[in-house]
Amino acid sequence: MPNTDKELRLSTGPDLTIAIAGLGIVGAETARQLVQASDRLSARAGRCLRLVAVSARSDSDRGFDRTGIAFESDALALARRADVDVVIELIGGEGGIALALAETALQAGKHVVTANKALIVHHGQRLAGLAEQARVRLKFEAAVAGGIPALKVLREGLAGNNIRRVTGILNGTCNYILSEMTNTGRGFDDVLAEAQAKGYAEADPSFDIDGVDAAHKLSILAAMAFAEQIDFGALQVTGIRQITDTDISYAGELGYVIKLLGHAQPQSPATVQPCLVAKTGQLAQIGGALNAVEFTAEPVQTVLCTGPGAGAGPTASAVLADVIDVAASRGGLPFGMRVGQLARATQKKDKQARRYYLRLMVMDETGVLSAVTSILRDQQISVESMLQKGQSDDKPVALVLTTHPTAPDQIKAACSSLSSARFISGAVMALPIVDEA
Amino acid sequence: MPNTDKELRLSTGPDLTIAIAGLGIVGAETARQLVQASDRLSARAGRCLRLVAVSARSDSDRGFDRTGIAFESDALALARRADVDVVIELIGGEGGIALALAETALQAGKHVVTANKALIVHHGQRLAGLAEQARVRLKFEAAVAGGIPALKVLREGLAGNNIRRVTGILNGTCNYILSEMTNTGRGFDDVLAEAQAKGYAEADPSFDIDGVDAAHKLSILAAMAFAEQIDFGALQVTGIRQITDTDISYAGELGYVIKLLGHAQPQSPATVQPCLVAKTGQLAQIGGALNAVEFTAEPVQTVLCTGPGAGAGPTASAVLADVIDVAASRGGLPFGMRVGQLARATQKKDKQARRYYLRLMVMDETGVLSAVTSILRDQQISVESMLQKGQSDDKPVALVLTTHPTAPDQIKAACSSLSSARFISGAVMALPIVDEA
Repeated sequence: MPNTDKELRLSTGPDLTIAIAGLGIVGAETARQLVQASDRLSARAGRCLRLVAVSARSDSDRGFDRTGIAFESDALALARRADVDVVIELIGGEGGIALALAETALQAGKHVVTANKALIVHHGQRLAGLAEQARVRLKFEAAVAGGIPALKVLREGLAGNNIRRVTGILNGTCNYILSEMTNTGRGFDDVLAEAQAKGYAEADPSFDIDGVDAAHKLSILAAMAFAEQIDFGALQVTGIRQITDTDISYAGELGYVIKLLGHAQPQSPATVQPCLVAKTGQLAQIGGALNAVEFTAEPVQTVLCTGPGAGAGPTASAVLADVIDVAASRGGLPFGMRVGQLARATQKKDKQARRYYLRLMVMDETGVLSAVTSILRDQQISVESMLQKGQSDDKPVALVLTTHPTAPDQIKAACSSLSSARFISGAVMALPIVDEA
Repeated sequence: MPNTDKELRLSTGPDLTIAIAGLGIVGAETARQLVQASDRLSARAGRCLRLVAVSARSDSDRGFDRTGIAFESDALALARRADVDVVIELIGGEGGIALALAETALQAGKHVVTANKALIVHHGQRLAGLAEQARVRLKFEAAVAGGIPALKVLREGLAGNNIRRVTGILNGTCNYILSEMTNTGRGFDDVLAEAQAKGYAEADPSFDIDGVDAAHKLSILAAMAFAEQIDFGALQVTGIRQITDTDISYAGELGYVIKLLGHAQPQSPATVQPCLVAKTGQLAQIGGALNAVEFTAEPVQTVLCTGPGAGAGPTASAVLADVIDVAASRGGLPFGMRVGQLARATQKKDKQARRYYLRLMVMDETGVLSAVTSILRDQQISVESMLQKGQSDDKPVALVLTTHPTAPDQIKAACSSLSSARFISGAVMALPIVDEA
């Protein structure tokens, strides 16, 4: 590395002064990096980056040297400080103080960097409009896929492409749970409890395991990929609560693993749902709490990026990249074009035929197979393979089928008929089988 | 997508005018995209992108509408045209006309975009200096890993990190050959001949299979990762000619596949060499002609990007991203900091202990194993496992060993002793076993 004096002497602009609101694990790590790696970061930024103020609930020690750094107990005060160029919002929450801080900072002509996906999903377009008016930056790389620079890859690295498809493993908690279930054969509740004990899942895990977190990230990716307004309400979201060890095991026998995938295409509604992916493909190898984002586009074909989707270090990496982009006047408009240019989200209908995995809990009695297959036949659904194991006189047993490519409407109708059949116990599970590009 | 009129009306800058030198498959594809997808590309760029001139050896049809696009038989004339803002150099070659064009264009105050790795490796620093002086951009995303925006990810997406390690599958031809050998059990010459017939390998394949192409890309990545001057001569490069089907098969039995990996760390010389990687890791899954670049860094941990490393579409994607960055005034300095700030390359010595795979062709006679193991013991090399199959009275048979972590000097000394032993036939093959981060 070049020596410090030379680096700083060659910095090209005035200092860039930074404030951080929120000193949780991400905020504290970001502050620590800005203080301890100031020379290296400034060299990369082309100007001196200076943390001048922080705000948090309590003024306690967070593991970095606070000399010369002001403390504000009111986060909004950061947005009003004359000595601050960039406000980093790491408070969280879709509204409240985070929103007020972002608005106030942008209106005061300060750049805003945030890791807050809920904020961007629900208010990102309006905030981007404020940033345009004030001619400042609004950046949120850390809001999607943690340490993977997914938004930069999409918005800039693939800017020359017509994006055909975005597929992502966007929630580390779900990926950890499904990977553990796959590797150990254990059940969902068991693995979830362990994940909670290890800190990989929240005490209230619904935000992750019901797919909401992944849906937030996907809706931001989809807006940028297709130059459309964010339309969170239009997403079709299914989480992983219904996935049983039986599903994992049957999928494995068929040559697949189950992953919670976000999936967006220009003419279909974006979906977050558990899917079967081939064991031999790249997505199946993304284990543990990793995230992955795959872009299929013309003319590049397919680019896949994987990395840690959460955690203090990876998230701080994304926040710092945004700050350095601001310092270097890089990155342009928040969504890659003006908010007024983003197409209005239109209602889309999913018509794409896919292969499906169907799992039914059936009573083990004469005539059941015939009844199931005739319901499928009535919907013109063609069965590719069928698996049934175990026998029981009094308890339902799992019957698993895979179909040839079938339209979503057909599958829905078939599931509805099956669910109401006398010999079926509980809901019918239908998971798409996703072939990699 | 927004409608065309609206897109263009909202463009923020004056037109950006573009010239392409070289209309081979990449040049023709780039031109075709600029002409046919002009509206979409201009919307992403925030200003109208206009292809105004091209140069090629012959003025023949290349599959795009040439209306209004000037033709120059002399590429240098593009650099002198007053109506050109950006010159895209796709002629190739480390010197000659490509170099003259880049120099002339930069000196004339034009931005230069190139896919030419040899040019950047041998003249990139001087050209970057010219670009700094002229306050224009020099961009070369397409020079490394084709369609993967690897340089952008490194220089900008991971700008907040201290890069600890760069590992890459950087040559699609080698990866295709090794993958085919692994999947089919066929020999090197056989697969190479097929790759040549299919167009995956050149008639003279040495540039690819001897590792030179991968080394070009790695030296650019290393310079950017560690803020050092490019030092191509210091790279230690071994190609894949010596890899036999026996190696592939023994590696497979040990749980590994063989990949040609580029590898750079701050304190070690960068290497390109065949390595063993675990079958269950992510790198082992990168099959066919794909490329992959993995960055291990603090605080992000590890980010891996994969995609097509060559071909008209992927390369055009990278060229177009550079052009759009130029249009949007993004991307900053070519190497992420001023040329004068790049540290002088220093001589580095590889001291890192690694596990090794050793393959020797030995005469199948009494006392050979004892002789081999005593040579290893003399170098304090500890054997982890040993495999020998087949017997022959008159032909040498393969003996394969894996070692516990061993310093490079020890391995070199052992290989040298072994190679000169009476009972060993031919060179000893020593391949590092790389554990993924």
